[in-house]
Amino acid sequence: MADLTSSDFPIHWPVSTRWSDNDMFGHLNNAVYYALFDTAINAWIGTTCDIDPMEAPWLGVVAESGCRYLAELKFPDPLVVGISVTRLGKSSITYRLALFEEDGPVAAVGTWVHVYVDRENRRPIPIPTEVRSLVERALV
Amino acid sequence: MADLTSSDFPIHWPVSTRWSDNDMFGHLNNAVYYALFDTAINAWIGTTCDIDPMEAPWLGVVAESGCRYLAELKFPDPLVVGISVTRLGKSSITYRLALFEEDGPVAAVGTWVHVYVDRENRRPIPIPTEVRSLVERALV
Amino acid sequence: MADLTSSDFPIHWPVSTRWSDNDMFGHLNNAVYYALFDTAINAWIGTTCDIDPMEAPWLGVVAESGCRYLAELKFPDPLVVGISVTRLGKSSITYRLALFEEDGPVAAVGTWVHVYVDRENRRPIPIPTEVRSLVERALV
Amino acid sequence: MADLTSSDFPIHWPVSTRWSDNDMFGHLNNAVYYALFDTAINAWIGTTCDIDPMEAPWLGVVAESGCRYLAELKFPDPLVVGISVTRLGKSSITYRLALFEEDGPVAAVGTWVHVYVDRENRRPIPIPTEVRSLVERALV
Repeated sequence: MADLTSSDFPIHWPVSTRWSDNDMFGHLNNAVYYALFDTAINAWIGTTCDIDPMEAPWLGVVAESGCRYLAELKFPDPLVVGISVTRLGKSSITYRLALFEEDGPVAAVGTWVHVYVDRENRRPIPIPTEVRSLVERALV
Repeated sequence: MADLTSSDFPIHWPVSTRWSDNDMFGHLNNAVYYALFDTAINAWIGTTCDIDPMEAPWLGVVAESGCRYLAELKFPDPLVVGISVTRLGKSSITYRLALFEEDGPVAAVGTWVHVYVDRENRRPIPIPTEVRSLVERALV
Repeated sequence: MADLTSSDFPIHWPVSTRWSDNDMFGHLNNAVYYALFDTAINAWIGTTCDIDPMEAPWLGVVAESGCRYLAELKFPDPLVVGISVTRLGKSSITYRLALFEEDGPVAAVGTWVHVYVDRENRRPIPIPTEVRSLVERALV
Repeated sequence: MADLTSSDFPIHWPVSTRWSDNDMFGHLNNAVYYALFDTAINAWIGTTCDIDPMEAPWLGVVAESGCRYLAELKFPDPLVVGISVTRLGKSSITYRLALFEEDGPVAAVGTWVHVYVDRENRRPIPIPTEVRSLVERALV
């Protein structure tokens, strides 16, 4: 994983940092990385496929996530989330993610599993067609 | 206040929204507005004056804040914080702030008082010269 | 306001702090105070009146909020939100809030206006009966 | 992991939830789990060993984290973080964590690696003696 570079991630989604993201140690708090991964995946899919998360008949819920922190990141630096898809199942999408400064080395590598479920009964459903079509472009 | 427009704010600082900013009602949670105001003021001053918040001999601490919410805002919309200075004291700066979509109406109006204090004893000090010079440009 | 004590607040709602609440200056970030006020009001009303915020036909939305910060607070200290109601309108409730350590001085004083609106059209409605009955107990 | 129960975790640290922890889907946002893990580990060690995170000559930084989400959790429910230590290295501590309602099933299982580093040069140091003595009690 330490060998990954930003070019290993087909989608680059810019995100920004906030004053309160830096913790007492002066660097991005570990939980913020997940908030940024979540933001990038949902903004990429949501804006491209025009999804209303309050109304869509299905939800993408997180079944598993993880992150390896390789270098410090800090507010106010603008950052980029690198998105790639490593596995496309029937109901679930597995992502490999990265966080880095533009043109900088990969500072964190994340994993993420979204499972698509019915809004009402919360049972797995096939990945919605428009979502599958989009994320296939990021398959590595 | 309802008559304010984005042109009443000399500084426009772009900020972005996050998935978790939307609460159960599908709009930006009220506390997020303050996080964005804080981010814009600190990023504007910090990057322009090249301040290291972990090392500077003084701190800008918040003595008072407030917000009137005029319209809903939502992730994933990119937003702008409008910054103006309404009072420049010896140790304190009073801001009037706004939050809006680019070219959109003012969706929230905030007030903010930063008091500059010594890092060690936390007693008020004169506003640092470089900060005063910068914020004077936003005086209205 | 500086003369207020915890006994001026009829309801005392315990809240806890988090590692990431402390910012680079080692004290509770200003926006966290609002998250704690929001939590206390909603938990008090929601658990007492058994409200499901995802299903109730009405929402309490924040029209205005404000805070004066009188003393530093820090993680990991457990805190208490003091709740009082200063005005009970037809559709809106105005709160005066405080944040303090148990048996300690008031460290922050907040104001908060909740307006009750219809979930669908987001227009003001009369304060729901069970909510009005509850908050009347905190009227000062 | 699905077989773990709360009794597999030697330390039970109570944490509370906030209004803004629930996302648009009405359940705890995935990143909040990490904020709660972080809070529990740091509050347990910090209060027991009386550590000042702004002044201690060393820091515990997160090298890796992960979480499997087994069931939904929601504000305003009070929760418990279960803490166990699965590996004690020279400079690093590996935790297995859980999140659950008191007397309820394990709703999430986390992993967490803290590496102790020098505050100034950020290079690994031996785990501070008082921290090692404490966390040994949670070794499983």
